[in-house]
Formats: sequence, C-alpha cells, structure tokens
Amino acid sequence: MTVSRIAPLSGFPEWLPPQRMIEQRVLDHLRTTFELYGFAPLETRAVEPLDQLLRKGETSKEVYLLRRLQADPQAPGTEDELGLHFDLTVPFARFVLENAGKLQFPFRRYQMQKVWRGEKPQAGRYREFLQADIDVVDRDTLPFHYEVEIPLVIGDALAGLPIPPIRIQVNNRKLCQGFYRGLGIEDTDAALRAVDKLDKIGPAGVTELLASTAGASSAQAKACLALAGISAEDASFVDAVQALGVSDPLLDEGLAELARVVEAGREHRPGLLVAELKIARGLDYYTGTVYETVMAGFESSGSVCSGGRYDNLATSGDDRYPGVGISIGVSRLLGLLFGAGALTVSRSVPTCVLVALPSEERRPDCDRVAAALRRRGIPTEVSPTAAKFGKQIRFAERRGIPYVWFLGADGAPDEVKDIRSGDQSSADSGEWTPPEDDRYPSISAKPS
Amino acid sequence: MTVSRIAPLSGFPEWLPPQRMIEQRVLDHLRTTFELYGFAPLETRAVEPLDQLLRKGETSKEVYLLRRLQADPQAPGTEDELGLHFDLTVPFARFVLENAGKLQFPFRRYQMQKVWRGEKPQAGRYREFLQADIDVVDRDTLPFHYEVEIPLVIGDALAGLPIPPIRIQVNNRKLCQGFYRGLGIEDTDAALRAVDKLDKIGPAGVTELLASTAGASSAQAKACLALAGISAEDASFVDAVQALGVSDPLLDEGLAELARVVEAGREHRPGLLVAELKIARGLDYYTGTVYETVMAGFESSGSVCSGGRYDNLATSGDDRYPGVGISIGVSRLLGLLFGAGALTVSRSVPTCVLVALPSEERRPDCDRVAAALRRRGIPTEVSPTAAKFGKQIRFAERRGIPYVWFLGADGAPDEVKDIRSGDQSSADSGEWTPPEDDRYPSISAKPS
Repeated sequence: MTVSRIAPLSGFPEWLPPQRMIEQRVLDHLRTTFELYGFAPLETRAVEPLDQLLRKGETSKEVYLLRRLQADPQAPGTEDELGLHFDLTVPFARFVLENAGKLQFPFRRYQMQKVWRGEKPQAGRYREFLQADIDVVDRDTLPFHYEVEIPLVIGDALAGLPIPPIRIQVNNRKLCQGFYRGLGIEDTDAALRAVDKLDKIGPAGVTELLASTAGASSAQAKACLALAGISAEDASFVDAVQALGVSDPLLDEGLAELARVVEAGREHRPGLLVAELKIARGLDYYTGTVYETVMAGFESSGSVCSGGRYDNLATSGDDRYPGVGISIGVSRLLGLLFGAGALTVSRSVPTCVLVALPSEERRPDCDRVAAALRRRGIPTEVSPTAAKFGKQIRFAERRGIPYVWFLGADGAPDEVKDIRSGDQSSADSGEWTPPEDDRYPSISAKPS
Repeated sequence: MTVSRIAPLSGFPEWLPPQRMIEQRVLDHLRTTFELYGFAPLETRAVEPLDQLLRKGETSKEVYLLRRLQADPQAPGTEDELGLHFDLTVPFARFVLENAGKLQFPFRRYQMQKVWRGEKPQAGRYREFLQADIDVVDRDTLPFHYEVEIPLVIGDALAGLPIPPIRIQVNNRKLCQGFYRGLGIEDTDAALRAVDKLDKIGPAGVTELLASTAGASSAQAKACLALAGISAEDASFVDAVQALGVSDPLLDEGLAELARVVEAGREHRPGLLVAELKIARGLDYYTGTVYETVMAGFESSGSVCSGGRYDNLATSGDDRYPGVGISIGVSRLLGLLFGAGALTVSRSVPTCVLVALPSEERRPDCDRVAAALRRRGIPTEVSPTAAKFGKQIRFAERRGIPYVWFLGADGAPDEVKDIRSGDQSSADSGEWTPPEDDRYPSISAKPS
C-alpha cells in the first residue's frame, strides 16, 4: 500500500509517543486510584442503537452514524441504525439494564474510553476524545453518602499527578430547585437552564431569559442571581442562602446535603471542594449534587471533570437504577497542558539501556546481555547497527536513553556508561541495576 | 433517559467486569513486555479517510463509514468520507508518513486498540475487537535482525500469562517465491495465494487453483505441495527443501533467513517457533518472514497472532519505510479462552478489604480506616449500609472480597477477619497488610 495523501484530520488529535507516555501514566494513576476505592473496570462497545443515543435530545446533532460500505441500500436493516457513543454514561446505563441480573449492587465501575461527537471542526472542539468515568449505581435507592465520596476519589486521582491544582465546584439541584420553588417560580427546570448560562450571557441576559422562559419577575430574577453569586469553601454558604429569606423543604434538604459534601471535602483535602451555587450543569437528568472542575491557570477553559447524581437515567419497567458519577475529560485536560507546554517526559522511548554493538557478529552476545537486563525488569534495546560507538551514543542521546552498555573485549568485564554524566564503570548484566528514577521515563511539570 | 430496548448486538462483544479485569491484566503484561524491549506506545485516531482504507482492496467490503446525523446532504464534504480503521497497520503506516520528521528511526512502537469490521454477523466473527500490535520501521532499509526479534518479543509476552502454550509458525516469502520461480512458475503471487488456501480446500483444490490461476503443471503443483508439507523446529527444513531439487538465489536467501529465525527461537525459548512452509498469509504486502500463531488446544480456531515483514507498506515519493510487525488478536484469544471457561479471576471487584459499618453515625470513622488502608495501597470499600454484620459479610462473600474490617468498640482495637478461613485478629489500619497474593485479584488458568 502506498499512502499518498497525508494530513491531520481536524478534531481528531493524535499524540506523539512522548505525549502518549504521559497520557498512559495519567491513565495508570487514575486506574490505580479508582481500584483503591473498589471501582471495577468496564469497557463497553463503541456503538449504540441510534434510538438510545437520541434520547438525550440536545446532543442528537453530534452523533456519528455508521453504515457498512457494502451494505445493500435496498435492504436496510437495524444494522444501519448504529451510532458511535458520545459519552460513557448512556452506554453504562444501557449496560447496567442489560446485565442487571449478573451484577452485584451497588455497582461501582470505572470506564476509560474514547467517545466521538460529530462537531463542526473548530478550535478546541474535539471529535474524538478520551474520557475517564466513575459511577456508583444501585437498585431502587442509592444512599446519599456516595455523592460525598465521588469527588474525594477524583481529588485523590488528580492530586497525585504533576498537573496544576484542581478545584471541584459543587452545587445541589435540590437546593436550587427548592429555592426557585420557594420563590414562586413554577418551571424550575427552565430557571436552572437560564442560570446555567450565567458565565456566557451575564446577569442581564439571565434576567431576560428567566423572564421569557420561566416567567420570573425582576424580583425573582434578582433572588436567583443572588443565589448564584454565593460561593464558599465551607458550610458558611448555608447562612448566606438563608439570609435571602426563601424557605422550602427541598431547599433545606439540598442545603444539608451540600454542607455534608463540602465539609467532608474540607476534612479530606482542604481546598479541593468549593460550594459554587451558580453551577447547574446543562443536562436535565441530574437530581442532586452536581460537580464541575477547574484547573488552576486554566479557569477560562471550562470544566475538565463534571458529573452529578441522577435518579432517572436507567429505568426499565419497575426497575430503577439511581446513580452518581463523574467524568474526567482526559483529552481535554491533556490538550490544555500539552498546548501550554506544561508537562514533560524524561525520554521519548521506554528504553533505559542501549547495548552497543561492536560488530554484527557479536549481536548474539548483545542479545544475551539485553535478555539478562530485561529479566530483571530493565527496558533494553540492542543497537540497530554496528556503527561507530560515537554514532551509537548519539542514537541513545537523541532518544534520551540514559545508559549505554559496552561488551567487555577479550575477557574484560562489560562496562556501562551514564551518557548524561559521562560516568563509566564495569558492570555485570546479571546484577547491575539503574537508580530507580532512571528505570522508567519520568513525567514532570515543566516550569513555565 | 429511560432505556427501553436492551439487547446485545451481534459481533460487538462486551465483557463483564471479572473478564475485563482479566483482559486488563493481559494488556498490562503485553505492555510491560513490549516496553522491556523498548517499544514506545502509540494510539492513533479511530478513523481514516476512506481512500486510505480502500487501498487494501480485499477488505473494502468490511469498512464502516461514518456520517454525521445532521450532515447537510446537499453539501457533502470530505468529512463524509471517513471510515473506522479495520486494523492498526494502515493507520500506523499513515502516522509514520505524516510524522516522519518528528520520529527517530528505526521506530519501534506498540499499539493496543479496538478495530472495526463491518462483517455480516455470524458465529465467531467480531465486528469490534481489540488488537495489540508491535512494529519496527526504518527509513530506506530495515536490517533483517528485526525479523528474528519480533517473534521472540511475542513469545515473552504470551509466555508470562496463564494461557495454553502458543506456537509461532514461521515461513519466508522469499523462500516460497524463489522456490516457485525456480520451478518455472511465473506468477508467484498467484501461487502463494493458492497455497494459502491449503487448509481450506485441501491438496486437490490447491492443485486445481495452481493450474487455473498460476498456470502450474501437475508436476509443478506437486512440488509446491511438497514444499508446503515441510515443517521443522530447527534448521533441518533446509535439507528437506534442498532435497526437492529446486534452485534459485531468492530461495537460498529465504532459506538462510528462515534458518536464522528458527534457530534464534530455539535458543530463546524451545518449542516457541516452528518453520511451517505452508504458511503464506493472505495479504499481498509481505515480502520476507511471515508469522502465524496457534494456541495449544485451539489449533482449529486459526491464528491468534499474525504478521510479517513488509517493504512497501509506507512509501511517499522517494521515501520508503520498510517494517516488520505482528498483531495479537486479543479479543479473539480471550474470546476462545472465555468460551472454554479456561481463565478465572479470584474476585469480581478490585476490593481487598470491606470495612463493616456498625451504624451510619460511625461512617466517618470507617472512612478514616479506609483512607489509611488506601494510603498504603490496599483497595478498600466501606459497607454501603449499616445492615446486620452477617449481611455485610455476605456482601463481601458475593464479590469475593477476602477481608472484612471491624471497628473496635469502646476503645478496643479494630479487628480484621479473613472470611475464607474465618480467622479474625486485632489489627491497626496504619500497619496491617494483607498477604501479597490477596492485595489484587489474581488471574489463573481454570483446569478443565
């Protein structure tokens, strides 16, 4: 095959191997953290029947449909109605319903997969991107305490990485809806959707929207904006809300829940959580706590990790599976950091040692050295050709490989050279071990 | 969202979490092995322009095309001509050409991703499956020794798993084509394709096909079949071929190369490689060593890992990137083993310890125990509710969680119970550690 036309496709990012090494290290850390909390791994198929994907009305225009190139256009079947999933929540809800009889509830799972959206190409909009989700679902009822736990897991997962600090902004749908109801606004969903646009259209825009879509008076709109302006790292927001003089049992329930989330975050990791009462999340299906996450220095780029509590996402006849979950936008997060040059890896290959090749005849001896090092977990390559040693050392340098190994001549012991310092010493391939920091490529934040 | 229609999709396998844990463990081991050999990670986008995908003519009927649900049918653009990749080799070749200026050659990469084929649904045919590929490509020329190394990497990667032994069947295109040419057959590609069908249509069928497509006489066909019948675990096949009395310089080159591959395999891991002269590989682009792999007990299911040397897969103007690679059919391999009940995992969740909850009021104390255990790398969950302890222990049992932790009452020390043996002893959450075998779920072969 000869490839003639080669060009990047807009919206389909591809990392070079050093960036992919960073991405893998990030995924490893997320996975380790999720498993420490007992979340089990899941991977669902990439496709769902179109009618499932369209149930979330707003996103219908973003779906990629599939058709077989050789499909018979005269005999369309259900196989023509498949689309690529645009998130991991819809497939997860479908998986839970399909396999409910084989799962143990509450079911905790994590899922790290690509998703696709047929967006029009434009800056910062990906058409294919990686998400890492955790969810807990239960049958019939789901205890509230999982809404407290989920953001703490994310805090642990992201705190252990060389990335800027993150802050999870938390709110509660009951709090907002109870407040709107207590104010006398009937269509609380419309009010939520209006307030959700605050950062985009400003207070005047929200006031107009509240009037036109939720029938809110100017006094009601003012109270909604006052609520949206409240923010606190502790339970002090409760007093601030109560000072607005609105009362409703659902509001009280939401206040108590949000206070528990924020206080637990403060004990677990100070600065991780903030009650931010303007956070609404666009999607309709949330019913309790909602989460959005900003990264220090990238606040204007929006949320890198969002989710919430949902009671009605997965129901089948009389069976109901309420849940709470959150989704890390891994491609989005890394895209921001790569774009800012904020992450670096110590080398472009996994290789720790390059075995220099004195002559092609001695390749079997070099292969034995490499095998001995690999048996002890040291990533090793043998030089591709018996070029001059200076050229072989440059081969290592260009890739960031820290050590070059030289076979001993005429019975002399082998030697290993740290090509960064130039230090060279005799070594036995059955015993020599690199410093632990050198064994694998290391990831670090690049000071800007 | 209410999900109403739920049914598995034919050809799109989904594993339950215990199987996914096994798959992840397999992928971890493959990745570790690939990195020990210095292969760098790569992940390419899921889509390629259709014209790239169609260059391998034979598979065109299996391509899934994409279109945006809301695309304007009056304004078709290039964005309508994207298809899902059906292997990882075509995207890799495209990636190398697109990024040649940023890569260091020889370039060693591994890639573990889903691929899609629009097959008609039928038993054993997947439409979405996972492959794990390694390739080495170089610019202009690629030294032969990489054809020796590639199957040894696969041997190490698959030998470290609790799966039946595998055997890599090796042949060499130069050997076969030189032999056919030495016999006087002109269309050696047609002869290769005919012999490739031996297992499907038998010797009589191949003889007919050789006559009709390659113009082979019955004596020539007889010699081709004699060659295809040769098999050996060492270089003794060279004598067997030479005894057929055909001579050609390309044949000699192929014999010498195949002998080197087989002998290196014998030193590295006896029994791993066998020279099997009937192996041809259907695809046209191979030009040297070719590999197919059978798993003991599943020989009739065909190859689980295939590849070979290619000189002409990626060329662009005067630039040429010869390579050698191999692809493990991970879904196929695991599908066979899962179907036979041949792999098992010790529990269905990552959790090692369940902290029992005496009352909802004590949840913060239980959370602190869990946090202390997690800080030392022990996967831990807190019980979902303060049910009776017997019910909480059954919660652990049903998931295979080996330990249940009990808070000490009234200043007494905490206790931890191994629910398999019933042993219970006092423990401190800052110090207690499970036996290493219990920390993570363990994978093993299930004796059949």
